[in-house]
Amino acid sequence: MSERALRAIEECRCIAAMTEEPGRITRRFLTPPVHAVHELLSGRMDALGMSVRVDAAGNLRGLWQPPSAGKQRLILGSHIDTVPDAGAFDGVLGVTLALEWVGLAQEFNLPLPIEVIAFSEEEGVRFGVPFLGSRAVAGRFDPALLALKDADGVTLDAAIRAFGLDPSRIGEAASGADALGMVEIHIEQGPVLEAEGLSVGAVTAIVGQTRKSLEFAGHANHAGTTPMRLRRDALAGAAEWIAAVETLALRTEGLIATVGKADVRPNAGNVIAEAVNASLDVRHANDTARHAAVEALVEQANAIAGRRGLALACKLQMDQPAVPMDERLTAYLAESIEAAGLPLRQMPSGAGHDTMVMAARMPTAMLFLRSPGGISHHPDEAVREEDVEDALKVGRKFLERVAAELG
Amino acid sequence: MSERALRAIEECRCIAAMTEEPGRITRRFLTPPVHAVHELLSGRMDALGMSVRVDAAGNLRGLWQPPSAGKQRLILGSHIDTVPDAGAFDGVLGVTLALEWVGLAQEFNLPLPIEVIAFSEEEGVRFGVPFLGSRAVAGRFDPALLALKDADGVTLDAAIRAFGLDPSRIGEAASGADALGMVEIHIEQGPVLEAEGLSVGAVTAIVGQTRKSLEFAGHANHAGTTPMRLRRDALAGAAEWIAAVETLALRTEGLIATVGKADVRPNAGNVIAEAVNASLDVRHANDTARHAAVEALVEQANAIAGRRGLALACKLQMDQPAVPMDERLTAYLAESIEAAGLPLRQMPSGAGHDTMVMAARMPTAMLFLRSPGGISHHPDEAVREEDVEDALKVGRKFLERVAAELG
Repeated sequence: MSERALRAIEECRCIAAMTEEPGRITRRFLTPPVHAVHELLSGRMDALGMSVRVDAAGNLRGLWQPPSAGKQRLILGSHIDTVPDAGAFDGVLGVTLALEWVGLAQEFNLPLPIEVIAFSEEEGVRFGVPFLGSRAVAGRFDPALLALKDADGVTLDAAIRAFGLDPSRIGEAASGADALGMVEIHIEQGPVLEAEGLSVGAVTAIVGQTRKSLEFAGHANHAGTTPMRLRRDALAGAAEWIAAVETLALRTEGLIATVGKADVRPNAGNVIAEAVNASLDVRHANDTARHAAVEALVEQANAIAGRRGLALACKLQMDQPAVPMDERLTAYLAESIEAAGLPLRQMPSGAGHDTMVMAARMPTAMLFLRSPGGISHHPDEAVREEDVEDALKVGRKFLERVAAELG
Repeated sequence: MSERALRAIEECRCIAAMTEEPGRITRRFLTPPVHAVHELLSGRMDALGMSVRVDAAGNLRGLWQPPSAGKQRLILGSHIDTVPDAGAFDGVLGVTLALEWVGLAQEFNLPLPIEVIAFSEEEGVRFGVPFLGSRAVAGRFDPALLALKDADGVTLDAAIRAFGLDPSRIGEAASGADALGMVEIHIEQGPVLEAEGLSVGAVTAIVGQTRKSLEFAGHANHAGTTPMRLRRDALAGAAEWIAAVETLALRTEGLIATVGKADVRPNAGNVIAEAVNASLDVRHANDTARHAAVEALVEQANAIAGRRGLALACKLQMDQPAVPMDERLTAYLAESIEAAGLPLRQMPSGAGHDTMVMAARMPTAMLFLRSPGGISHHPDEAVREEDVEDALKVGRKFLERVAAELG
């Protein structure tokens, strides 16, 4: 195993100990342990000869500027905040691996300026709004967000000040035309690469997402005295629809549809259900396909409800378009995977990432690493050393390719 | 409208005002308002020339003994306790109508001794165990029950004493060979008679009932990053089974099967469900048919779980045999319905009743009255005057028939 792979993993384990809750990994936006993370990472950046700063949104940014190179730089990065009781690799590995990629660029004397960004916030845990760090770098940070309060009543404005930063300068965090694009390295957080026996994959798009809640309303009645044909059973209706959701997703290429929540009222074994409130989560890399699926599923819910004498109420909760990755940058990444001697797997990302926000400002690409067991947001989250090794091989090919394009 | 029908209904409305909770009808076993109910009903029994007593289980019992008749008596009755926030007619109407039947027997000088019992407890609300009153009359009261405690920590023993009765004498409440049978008049508490435009029906059996809980256990996963074919979605599996439960019940004559409860974990819109705990309530007048249905449904659950990689755990919570009504007494009732010029509808009762317990001791029969809207255990519970009128017509024919048999 190479020193680079071991170090990238070891740093994740070390950062995992920097937590708000002893014994659990919980590191929300600009909480005290983030100071320790910045100290460790800026030490590494210093050692690599990078110039280091923390922008007003709390993003730690190190710039490697090769003496003979121009100003057009590649951005690499991911986030260092976590969900409560998290694993050690979600986000953080994308930062420690980025630093190893910088090391590779230096090793091969590539004339490629690289900025590594440890984004301060991606998960949305502390203030209920995600991507605070990348919003600032993408020039999309709405100052109205500064009034957000955390669970303790601390405003985002006050949290930034308490960390020693000046929220009025967040505008200056925006990256401009000097960035040629951003690449994020991230664990897959899903089981696809593992199921196919692959170490890495190139992300084609962050899928778009629709969230709805559907309420099926029938009539509560005695489960013993009401014959089957005289019922308006909300749970039987909802069950028929939940099965239909799965059926449509199974037979539609690229469609993911989930009912993860169902609240039954009155929820008693001997009472026919009066109402069921069910969630619908639909994702697809193609917005047209996603909207068509949602429409079909609502239509089926209406048909089921109509046939059963149930009332149906639908509420739209989220309609977030898909974010395609940049074609050229992603093609470089794909070629680099193959040049590294690895099978090429291109896949959409079912979860959101900082690249989703950055894509509004610059070309983006994403490299996924296999998630053992598909596990993420959990202490059992892991990464295989040989996969990190492969990500380094891909990195070398990719950086060479980008440097060649610039030269 | 006859004076008898109006009075039977009016007394129910009057008794409805005797409640533990002003504005709602709630009258649990031997709570203070029961004294008022006993006072009203024993006044009516007195006026009918009946001898009145309260047995040690709190049942109010009035005996009409015609001067020239033997000792073999017919028992009529139902319960006077209620569920919380109840309607006015569940149970109580069976007592006030029984008193009108006594009036009819007297009007036509029938040589038929009749005991009317206002059972003290049927719903099981106060002590969690139902049929306390009829258990005593049927000679099936287990003295161990006296240790039961209500929500305030009052024992059943203490509650009986506080009402002014002696729990050590409950054994004396048992009816013996001097009873030729019991007839209970009760609202249907379901929609069948209303759907068929009928006022009354003869009950063939109290259906048997199985209650089970089934836990489908899969694997929680990210709803965005886990492809459809790599899921072990407990809610999708449970939904398929809930639909199968309804399908089997719809195509099996006399079968009623309900899933009224489903608890989903973790129950979040963006997380594939890890586990669903669902209830199963199966009822049929024929125990063999019921057991076969339960077996088929558990088999289907196992097949669904097996195919989907889910674990299935089943827990039996209740297996209560069907209680057929007495053939001869029910035939008398059926003939009386036809003799009264009404269409004959024979039907099982999907809910439990005092006759279910009494059937272990003596022949029983039950007369159902239409429930408008199928509503019961609810303030909107109602009864139609013309249906009460029909129940009086049936009563006259029935009492004449039984008296003739005795003579």
